[in-house]
Amino acid sequence: MAIVEMELNKIRIDENRGEQVIVLKEKEGDRFLPIVIGIMEVTSIKMEISGVTTPRPMTHDLLVSTIAKLGAKLDRIVITKLEQNTFFAKLVLQIDSRFEEVDARPSDSIALALRAKARIFVEEQVLTRVSNNLE
Amino acid sequence: MAIVEMELNKIRIDENRGEQVIVLKEKEGDRFLPIVIGIMEVTSIKMEISGVTTPRPMTHDLLVSTIAKLGAKLDRIVITKLEQNTFFAKLVLQIDSRFEEVDARPSDSIALALRAKARIFVEEQVLTRVSNNLE
Repeated sequence: MAIVEMELNKIRIDENRGEQVIVLKEKEGDRFLPIVIGIMEVTSIKMEISGVTTPRPMTHDLLVSTIAKLGAKLDRIVITKLEQNTFFAKLVLQIDSRFEEVDARPSDSIALALRAKARIFVEEQVLTRVSNNLE
Repeated sequence: MAIVEMELNKIRIDENRGEQVIVLKEKEGDRFLPIVIGIMEVTSIKMEISGVTTPRPMTHDLLVSTIAKLGAKLDRIVITKLEQNTFFAKLVLQIDSRFEEVDARPSDSIALALRAKARIFVEEQVLTRVSNNLE
């Protein structure tokens, strides 16, 4: 299945609905992918973007340092599907010469990708579906 | 340095202060260690205790599955020090025959230990200090 590289475009607060929306944009194109995420995850993402550091590691920092301590790296994250308005994603970890995939929420995945400077992808079929819905 | 095994005794909500306190108890003794933690971490701990499952992995579930996918296991967590009313902790991970330590907050550490069925320890000097303060 084809995957498309995305980048973080903006974080939007929908005050009417009380929702935080993270918007990814196609890196080599003009399609957008808005994802509703929780307040904790949006805070974690904002902290990373703003370069805020804390005396003790927050949960996503801990995940990144755990991956490093185990001799692995986060190669990429992929948003894999959309079911009943819920997005699913996976981490792709590289350890030695092999790759391992771990199921994750998009919000955790993006919070990690930004910290680990890993690339963000979405399955073409997910992007097609969501882009159509936006029109 | 000596370490003492602890177990989760209770979770207490201090409504006056708006704080959540997790109380650890010495496994082979009567000393207690209360730790103030955040609302997200207390929720994560309560979900694990209550056996609540979610369609997608929450952040601590993701950390546990990442550790497993990388061929490691959480051997134990240790609460290592108390500085300016803030506790510090570490994860001790086993991978093959070696052990790796990762700095963490006690709240994340406990949320992970409960999921991974890993043992919970505290440095004797931390326990001594806090127990004295309680008297």
